[in-house]
Amino acid sequence: MNLLLLPPGTSDGAVTLSDSQAGHLRSVLGVAPGDTVRVGVIDGPMGTGTVVHLDATTPQVVLQCQFDTTIPDAPRVDLLLALPRPKVMKRLWAQLAALGVGRIMLTNAEKVERPYFDTHVLEESVYRPLLLEGLQQARDTRVPLVTVHRQFRKLVEDELDGLSNARTRLLADPGAHPSPATALREHAAGRVLLAVGPDGGWNDFERGLLIGQGFGPISMGTRTLRTDTACVALLALVHDAVTRPGA
Amino acid sequence: MNLLLLPPGTSDGAVTLSDSQAGHLRSVLGVAPGDTVRVGVIDGPMGTGTVVHLDATTPQVVLQCQFDTTIPDAPRVDLLLALPRPKVMKRLWAQLAALGVGRIMLTNAEKVERPYFDTHVLEESVYRPLLLEGLQQARDTRVPLVTVHRQFRKLVEDELDGLSNARTRLLADPGAHPSPATALREHAAGRVLLAVGPDGGWNDFERGLLIGQGFGPISMGTRTLRTDTACVALLALVHDAVTRPGA
Repeated sequence: MNLLLLPPGTSDGAVTLSDSQAGHLRSVLGVAPGDTVRVGVIDGPMGTGTVVHLDATTPQVVLQCQFDTTIPDAPRVDLLLALPRPKVMKRLWAQLAALGVGRIMLTNAEKVERPYFDTHVLEESVYRPLLLEGLQQARDTRVPLVTVHRQFRKLVEDELDGLSNARTRLLADPGAHPSPATALREHAAGRVLLAVGPDGGWNDFERGLLIGQGFGPISMGTRTLRTDTACVALLALVHDAVTRPGA
Repeated sequence: MNLLLLPPGTSDGAVTLSDSQAGHLRSVLGVAPGDTVRVGVIDGPMGTGTVVHLDATTPQVVLQCQFDTTIPDAPRVDLLLALPRPKVMKRLWAQLAALGVGRIMLTNAEKVERPYFDTHVLEESVYRPLLLEGLQQARDTRVPLVTVHRQFRKLVEDELDGLSNARTRLLADPGAHPSPATALREHAAGRVLLAVGPDGGWNDFERGLLIGQGFGPISMGTRTLRTDTACVALLALVHDAVTRPGA
């Protein structure tokens, strides 16, 4: 944990930590009074917390917090992802939050199996702690917005414009397409919406629908990767390209 | 599976598949006589296999194989990785093979826990099938070479030159360093050796030793990632940079 995330609305002043966070500061970081730790407010500013009190008999830790006046921008990439199998999705939550995504739209597709939608991995009580874990790892406060879409066509044709303000839309598709960096060379400033298909790929209808809605195909070369590896690799490449425009 | 890997030394002609590979062709791909599948010889050429016989009473499948005259080059990136915990390492094997690495050197470091070296995840009988799984996913035949090093200093000072012929050495290190693409702008042609540290980072001694042996620090920006996420992200960025030199 590289950042201690505190509840939304926390403001400057003394904060008494929950048992699990206090335990982490004590047993993993081994803090003493006077030590400072990086803190952040969920969906709010980052700042510094100074340990002012360690209770000898309870796990209690009190931090005196001071927060920045600005809130970090949401990451510049949104993700449209064909829902992977639950075991893979469970692992991806923290990774996606750590890599940085503004919004995660999980969608159906022909090659997504229906039972995937009925898993507890899509319950907010399960994924939110995993997203926060990723943010604390990567030092960010902005929790990715998450929506789940069982109707691919409705999502792409009717809902997408309202969900993501990214002007550049990219579609990961194996084949002889430009790399993310090449595709993004002309799009320095804006946000990017990246679509990643299921392990078996989008079908022709799905691919056509996405291209019809302005998604430009990209690829990472000749190697075909599994969804989870592809997601991480593509997000790294897209972030790199939007961070270094014109490179 | 996008490529069916056959034992080393397989040559043109009829090949009778093992039960598990025959089962995959029958039940997952549903092949019929006359169908063709992509095949490859482990550490050898790729080619095409035509289904010539499906036995009705046994799982047996016979392919008539024809292989290319050339063998794919080894991937242009080698990896020096501080051994992550066994659960993470187990997941990484297939991902690393799929992304493409010529050699994987797993090393000790201050922040690597000693018991990690005693796990079955480092036994060839465990990791080789996972490497082959990654190669079959990404359509490559070249199995990454794997070595395990309990002595970091001996590895870096005495053994590294003999293990990796990569002329460019990069050290992933959080901080204000150039991106992989920037660092590699001058190094179009050669192979790259990438060093990725443990979750807690290299210590100063380790970092100094690597820099003394020609490793140039790179970073992916301000977000700190876990080892497994960082490995996948960095390999994607380095492959992209060596594939598109000067970009």
